[in-house]
Amino acid sequence: MSLVRFGVSISATLSEKFDQLIRQKNYANRSEAIRDLIRKELVQEEIDKNSEVIGVVNILYNHHKRELGEKLTDLQHEHHSLVLSSMHIHLDHDNCVEVIIMRGTSQHVKNLADLLIASKGVKHGTVNLTSTGKNLD
Amino acid sequence: MSLVRFGVSISATLSEKFDQLIRQKNYANRSEAIRDLIRKELVQEEIDKNSEVIGVVNILYNHHKRELGEKLTDLQHEHHSLVLSSMHIHLDHDNCVEVIIMRGTSQHVKNLADLLIASKGVKHGTVNLTSTGKNLD
Amino acid sequence: MSLVRFGVSISATLSEKFDQLIRQKNYANRSEAIRDLIRKELVQEEIDKNSEVIGVVNILYNHHKRELGEKLTDLQHEHHSLVLSSMHIHLDHDNCVEVIIMRGTSQHVKNLADLLIASKGVKHGTVNLTSTGKNLD
Amino acid sequence: MSLVRFGVSISATLSEKFDQLIRQKNYANRSEAIRDLIRKELVQEEIDKNSEVIGVVNILYNHHKRELGEKLTDLQHEHHSLVLSSMHIHLDHDNCVEVIIMRGTSQHVKNLADLLIASKGVKHGTVNLTSTGKNLD
Repeated sequence: MSLVRFGVSISATLSEKFDQLIRQKNYANRSEAIRDLIRKELVQEEIDKNSEVIGVVNILYNHHKRELGEKLTDLQHEHHSLVLSSMHIHLDHDNCVEVIIMRGTSQHVKNLADLLIASKGVKHGTVNLTSTGKNLD
Repeated sequence: MSLVRFGVSISATLSEKFDQLIRQKNYANRSEAIRDLIRKELVQEEIDKNSEVIGVVNILYNHHKRELGEKLTDLQHEHHSLVLSSMHIHLDHDNCVEVIIMRGTSQHVKNLADLLIASKGVKHGTVNLTSTGKNLD
Repeated sequence: MSLVRFGVSISATLSEKFDQLIRQKNYANRSEAIRDLIRKELVQEEIDKNSEVIGVVNILYNHHKRELGEKLTDLQHEHHSLVLSSMHIHLDHDNCVEVIIMRGTSQHVKNLADLLIASKGVKHGTVNLTSTGKNLD
Repeated sequence: MSLVRFGVSISATLSEKFDQLIRQKNYANRSEAIRDLIRKELVQEEIDKNSEVIGVVNILYNHHKRELGEKLTDLQHEHHSLVLSSMHIHLDHDNCVEVIIMRGTSQHVKNLADLLIASKGVKHGTVNLTSTGKNLD
């Protein structure tokens, strides 16, 4: 991996505030924090351009709801080309969270997330998108 | 579970647009869609009030980065009272996504997410918060 | 304006939590709160579909920066078909906020907002999108 | 204004993608883009810490709604210590957008925004927060 080095000028005031934030967020140094800011922008760009992304969907539901578990599994199998993996967490006697990892264009991932979240019996759900990591070193 | 039934008046125009959205998002009926909208507001409220929530953190990193995997595991163990479970997905030769499920106040969850995301070698990370499901039937 | 009336069933628990939220946010009644939730979804839909929307851009800058004020005005004139109006607020000796209202497709509005926010000397800027109000009664 | 200059190392791949983004968003150079990324983080931090911020609220409503215009004006006067200025835009025969600029802690600004948005007859509203510009040079 070849490296590029360049200089950044900022005011003393801004630099001081930034250093406080870096310490608070536990970044190793300014370069590391700035790389993270740059990557955050690039990932947002990938999402906006409907590139291939990774989707992390979480679904909260009552597993006593008749047939909901099966329905969620069926939906994932119908779209098996999008779904990479899933994980199930028992929260209490009734509630559980299922996390489903997908890979596809932002639009495909969002559509399947909508389907899962709209299933009768699902109490709450959201989806987070991240990058596949290519060109993001 | 006792039910409450109440009437909602909306204009014909609004009702028509809403029915289109319901069909598109695959909701069973208006009641189901409206329950989902209400729960979404209530979950946002729980998050804003620093209540106990479930956090779903995703972290993208290159698992060849020296000691990063260990560091991430150590961080999770140091905060084991917050971490419920985690899942690891191999994306390609270099990249992987780790999803970590936490339970705690919104602020504690966000702080630990910040720590994980700021670790040197992590390319991108985000956190989604959802409810523990209590009082959300 | 013709009205449609329909019934919604929710659990007593959910209803109680919703009523708390309604009082707290000062809604007149459940119908009014639910209409607002529905419209919020529809506006998000318009934005996602690149429909014609209203954009409210805010820009924070130091008006002593040489030529920045002129540059911002020039940019607005170059895109006069998008810009409806603007307002300028003096915050202190140096800082001011300019709010620019636009009308156009979500994409055109976001692009012009990006241009304004990226202008050298602008400290911070964001854009909010809302509806033109058609079909949203 | 005293300047601080420091070096940033990033991979050639990341640098290339970042330069593309910079050109696309029309930034003058990398330093300018990075200052913007840093300020965006600092403003988010101010908002999260309930510091004094500037709020830009936009409200879409039908100005034929009986007494709504007056109610909105009354609400602003009741909280005159928060409200700096407002602007009114006529969109068509029925619809208008009112933009209200406030200054106060994030929480106070959000509470007043909630009150305005929840007013009967308001179709849609959102609030954007930005900085007062202090320490953000």
